[in-house]
Amino acid sequence: MTIKAVVFDAYGTLYDIQSVAAVTEEAFPGYGEIITQIWRIKQLEYTWLRSLMRRYEDFSVVTRDSLAYTLRVLGLEHDSGVFERIMDKYLHLDLYPDARSALAAMRDRKLAILSNGSPGMLNALVRNSGLDRVLDATISIDPQKIFKPAPEAYTLIESVLGVPAAEAMFVSSNPWDACGAKAFGLNVAWIERVTPQAMALSCIKSDSVAPLTMFKAIRTQMDELGLEPDYRIHALAELPGLVAAHER
Amino acid sequence: MTIKAVVFDAYGTLYDIQSVAAVTEEAFPGYGEIITQIWRIKQLEYTWLRSLMRRYEDFSVVTRDSLAYTLRVLGLEHDSGVFERIMDKYLHLDLYPDARSALAAMRDRKLAILSNGSPGMLNALVRNSGLDRVLDATISIDPQKIFKPAPEAYTLIESVLGVPAAEAMFVSSNPWDACGAKAFGLNVAWIERVTPQAMALSCIKSDSVAPLTMFKAIRTQMDELGLEPDYRIHALAELPGLVAAHER
Repeated sequence: MTIKAVVFDAYGTLYDIQSVAAVTEEAFPGYGEIITQIWRIKQLEYTWLRSLMRRYEDFSVVTRDSLAYTLRVLGLEHDSGVFERIMDKYLHLDLYPDARSALAAMRDRKLAILSNGSPGMLNALVRNSGLDRVLDATISIDPQKIFKPAPEAYTLIESVLGVPAAEAMFVSSNPWDACGAKAFGLNVAWIERVTPQAMALSCIKSDSVAPLTMFKAIRTQMDELGLEPDYRIHALAELPGLVAAHER
Repeated sequence: MTIKAVVFDAYGTLYDIQSVAAVTEEAFPGYGEIITQIWRIKQLEYTWLRSLMRRYEDFSVVTRDSLAYTLRVLGLEHDSGVFERIMDKYLHLDLYPDARSALAAMRDRKLAILSNGSPGMLNALVRNSGLDRVLDATISIDPQKIFKPAPEAYTLIESVLGVPAAEAMFVSSNPWDACGAKAFGLNVAWIERVTPQAMALSCIKSDSVAPLTMFKAIRTQMDELGLEPDYRIHALAELPGLVAAHER
């Protein structure tokens, strides 16, 4: 089956959210990494909890609230300037190094982002990284008022791009997102950026179960949700070849 | 307003899920605590994700899947006997020491459990701990096919007990559950079992951000979901006095 559109998750898939750690480390030396890990877990939890409670607020609210939670739990006092400086980094995240060339290699298809991000956050991020010149659409789930992995979020691919699920390839490094897209009926490529081998190695090295390793593990290893992505790759660079092979 | 029913969350509120650590530690020395923490995070995530994906499976399935995930991520090999021994502990969890006397002191009200647990798991747990002689009802969310904190789950209090939300006190130590109940319109007492002071102290003691402390923190500190429980207590023992005071 032809793949007419390749649709990407944004945070953690095209954009490296760990790049926030440089800013958090500067603001709170020694806590940079742990802040980003707890922040991310709570950011995700709040999207799911608010969706279930029918108390949707957009991703910028959830991202602020989860950062506030993280600094409170870690006992890190701060002024609003520091808080805003960290938040601002979310609009200037680094692209993964192979993102640009992977997108360029697939410019004969429709290319889009489908993200939990708010329209404001996504538009700034895409513009700041120059992807506005490459993408056909930057789709926020915001009009649906419910976050991924709810099926209502994935329906936007067809309604915005006019491409049915069977002719779209969805790409995410987030295991829960890959599962949600698969449950919805999309073709799914999951990017496994941290392999179990790398995980095991870092545990052995530290001679104990290190906190950051574990926080990373529970965000990067495939979940047990009774769903399997169609493809498991390790970098965006593998994607153009995979899409071509899928059509053969 | 009269409180006609006091309704408890089960796991982590009446029953100490950390009591599983004795069994996991015996099975995997040195990993007992970290297993219970990752297991719990994933167990919760899977209830929320399956609810959002409209892929409900009952809590016994989710609990097995999240344990399988945990052992896989930690690289812990095991046979099915070990797996079943750990799972079985979930049917024999310890009550918190003040649970029995708190319930006895409120026997003039309707007393019930409202839990994400499956009917089979809950009935075994309640019978094994002897609470079947004290509770008027053990309510599983299972008939609704969606987990807390979805409002559909909390509607069961009125439909099963015949007590409207305004005349029921809901008790949970789980921040997301306390928020969900509040969003629904119940009177809510949140049990804060780990105080921020205790948390800060254990960080100072270990002279670093310890993994278990952080995993515990993100499960026990009040979340930033724009909702506040009506009451914040530190133990079940405070509950009879609180309910009486609420009516004055």
